[in-house]
Amino acid sequence: MAVRGAPAIGLTAAYALVLAAQEAAKSGARGDARLAIIVRARDVLAQTRPTAVNLAWALDEVLRVAREDPSPGALLQKAEALHAEDVAGNERIGRQLLARLRPGMNVLTHCNAGALATGGLGTALSGLFLARELGLPLHVWVSETRPRLQGARLTAWELTQAGIDCTLITDNMAASLMAKGRVDLVVTGADRIAANGDTANKVGTSMHAVCAAHFGVPFHVAAPRSTFDLTLSAGDQIPIEERSWSEVTTVGSERLCPEGMKVYNPGFDVTPAALIRSCFTDRGEIEPVSREAIARVMRGP
Amino acid sequence: MAVRGAPAIGLTAAYALVLAAQEAAKSGARGDARLAIIVRARDVLAQTRPTAVNLAWALDEVLRVAREDPSPGALLQKAEALHAEDVAGNERIGRQLLARLRPGMNVLTHCNAGALATGGLGTALSGLFLARELGLPLHVWVSETRPRLQGARLTAWELTQAGIDCTLITDNMAASLMAKGRVDLVVTGADRIAANGDTANKVGTSMHAVCAAHFGVPFHVAAPRSTFDLTLSAGDQIPIEERSWSEVTTVGSERLCPEGMKVYNPGFDVTPAALIRSCFTDRGEIEPVSREAIARVMRGP
Repeated sequence: MAVRGAPAIGLTAAYALVLAAQEAAKSGARGDARLAIIVRARDVLAQTRPTAVNLAWALDEVLRVAREDPSPGALLQKAEALHAEDVAGNERIGRQLLARLRPGMNVLTHCNAGALATGGLGTALSGLFLARELGLPLHVWVSETRPRLQGARLTAWELTQAGIDCTLITDNMAASLMAKGRVDLVVTGADRIAANGDTANKVGTSMHAVCAAHFGVPFHVAAPRSTFDLTLSAGDQIPIEERSWSEVTTVGSERLCPEGMKVYNPGFDVTPAALIRSCFTDRGEIEPVSREAIARVMRGP
Repeated sequence: MAVRGAPAIGLTAAYALVLAAQEAAKSGARGDARLAIIVRARDVLAQTRPTAVNLAWALDEVLRVAREDPSPGALLQKAEALHAEDVAGNERIGRQLLARLRPGMNVLTHCNAGALATGGLGTALSGLFLARELGLPLHVWVSETRPRLQGARLTAWELTQAGIDCTLITDNMAASLMAKGRVDLVVTGADRIAANGDTANKVGTSMHAVCAAHFGVPFHVAAPRSTFDLTLSAGDQIPIEERSWSEVTTVGSERLCPEGMKVYNPGFDVTPAALIRSCFTDRGEIEPVSREAIARVMRGP
């Protein structure tokens, strides 16, 4: 968890393969033996996190280069290209959210999909940063995101640093805010999007999506091409990482429940495509979120 | 917050008026002056918590006795009668939930509506304790209940002590469990129920109710007569207590967010009657939850 956020995980893994290529070069290994060192590093990296597909995607992209030219320079060039692509993609994603924003709107976001989660400005948050640059007044509800509190710790910090008006809430308060008309739009990032648009993201995202649908609040997902996994036909095929009980039972040194308590701690949940108004992507906005629209946008022009 | 749980708040206030009556007796005051001491205590107590109507109800019940006979003995007799009524009512409420339970069911509850919240076995939890006594196998999902963690701290403890199989989750995980068919029934307590059935309860309750409705999971409320406020026609008239920012920004000595962060911290939210399958009450089950059915059951036979 030193690195988190699906796009940041992918980019970090890409740079990690550059380090592996450096070690392979130093080792004096040649040909297939040299490539094997890089492949082994890929295998280790690929197993670190099961849900974010950006990890496998970035590793595959860099490995394809390594098969042609396993030199550190070639891999670094590719990693930097992926990074630059993410930065540019973040801004394209942000412009799509920006087009939905109106002065005085209340936006709700869950977890952290900002600069701390990506190579650039972020996915869900990039549009908010662009709005701030333009002087568009907004207010953001920051959902704290139990158990790891990425909202409270990371999003709250990023928005405050950017001078964006924001208020921290516990995750379970969003429904009552929506009931009072105090949320105009929900936007989150994503860890993996299946071919039909079902979206895995930080646990709690599907709760916000269900409540948003109930109260007629538009719910949007923001993610680059690397988050789409077109090999999976639907969200029930996305592997969901189960994480340590201690994330739920303790916060720092504070114990939150009796000793010996059983805990369930999935890191992610799946929001069905039907609850998602649109996907903001680096290849353009996908609305409505359907298998056909996703295939068309991902295929590109 | 040394005392919490709507019925427990009411009973504690009733006993507090007995203490006021003892002081009034000791003071040597007579007649109206003696009653005035008790009324002043009532006024102070009534302002301690705005949402739970059981507080005002219990104070009114005891004060009615005091107007006839302000002796400590008379007030104690009334407070004990209210307490005994709550104990008996808890069991009647529990039997209604029990009738809904089947072996192997997964029940979800939010906050704490057990023996730590009432005079007896509890409201939402009493049926679970009765099921345990009968050897009916159940599993309970305990929603931790941010920010004060009454689920993690109190419900988890009560259920574990009773030997009931239970698992702690963060509040935001309930939707994904419901999506997988892993929740068969949701039951919570209540802090105030308006004449139309709209129910104020711990913040997060309405989120669970919206998700339960979306996934077709029955959502029930359990509360005694003293929780019903027939003077309010609908839930939007229920005062919602806003609590300290520090409940959200810190857990014990752990800071959860940047310094200076704005926080919104309503202690309760309102679940619309339309999302509630039935109310388990000490006067019988109310289903469907309508103004007419509530008036009929509360009027009694």
